[in-house]
Amino acid sequence: MNVEPQSLENLISEFASLPGIGLKTARRLAYHMLSRKKGDVERFADSLMQAAEKVHPCPRCHAFTDEDICPTCRAREGAKSICVVEKNSDILPFERSSVHKGLYFVLGGVISPLDGIGPEALHLPQLVERIKAENIEELVLALGSSPEADSTALMIDRMLAGVNVKRTRLARGIPMGSDLEFIDEVTMLRAFEGRVSL
Amino acid sequence: MNVEPQSLENLISEFASLPGIGLKTARRLAYHMLSRKKGDVERFADSLMQAAEKVHPCPRCHAFTDEDICPTCRAREGAKSICVVEKNSDILPFERSSVHKGLYFVLGGVISPLDGIGPEALHLPQLVERIKAENIEELVLALGSSPEADSTALMIDRMLAGVNVKRTRLARGIPMGSDLEFIDEVTMLRAFEGRVSL
Repeated sequence: MNVEPQSLENLISEFASLPGIGLKTARRLAYHMLSRKKGDVERFADSLMQAAEKVHPCPRCHAFTDEDICPTCRAREGAKSICVVEKNSDILPFERSSVHKGLYFVLGGVISPLDGIGPEALHLPQLVERIKAENIEELVLALGSSPEADSTALMIDRMLAGVNVKRTRLARGIPMGSDLEFIDEVTMLRAFEGRVSL
Repeated sequence: MNVEPQSLENLISEFASLPGIGLKTARRLAYHMLSRKKGDVERFADSLMQAAEKVHPCPRCHAFTDEDICPTCRAREGAKSICVVEKNSDILPFERSSVHKGLYFVLGGVISPLDGIGPEALHLPQLVERIKAENIEELVLALGSSPEADSTALMIDRMLAGVNVKRTRLARGIPMGSDLEFIDEVTMLRAFEGRVSL
């Protein structure tokens, strides 16, 4: 006998639609929600709606914001370096380590023909336009290390032919605290190729 | 600089309030929600509200239901055995294996003085009343194997003193498919104590 009411089943499948949440976890979360006070559930539902309504991409850098222009673009107007990331959440580690004092630009993905993501699906023309319009001096590419990221970097490099902007990418090598024994081949290859003099 | 809008932060902390969801996963889920279509987010929020509004405990067995009486209590009215579980989701494995054809009763927890859960917080009087009123012949206790579950079982046994009902509990022993090498001491102790003749 199916002992779960329809509305509970619906909630389970909504949770199960989230990335990394399997059916068992979804069921646990849904049962948990029902054991909460109704006010708690309302607050959860409301924060979902609020976030969906208020948060939108910044028109300048495409990062999530609930203002006209995102705080970074506003506070750092006139900065001469721009860090290009694939997705919104990639900005956080930069700000956490306070390593980059300049602007950001969220591409919204990397070129991936197999997934049907061509150059036109990303914000590449806007990036080039911004670099020209704001006289950006350095472009730091921080796109991960997949083949797709590499070809996206190449595409950006080509689109900027003739534009006077220094182009860099994040260093690749051994991460802090890791045991050399467990480093994969590609990381080791890149760390060795990129070795620097003492 | 804090690059996350307030409404996004709120959504992250709502997700992080769920059991087993840490801050990193909560952030991933919140960013994922924002990358979805607005209609999808609305449907999620709506299913939360629907579940919270429609689902309530069955007045007879305290299982979650969206009807006056839950389907199990309705379909199996007059059944003479009742299976007592700690929480709602514990009913599922019984129904999945179709092993129990009788009624259920959700206690809503086990007695745990350290967490401030005394006998009065559970539905013990209603359980005793139902067993008497419906002339239940067998009570199957399925309360897990913690010391709290054991003392709850003892309490139920005492409250039923003088009531003519057979009381059983689930067998304890080696689960299917497990390697004896990795069985913990308590399970082994119980499996050995409960050995049966071939």
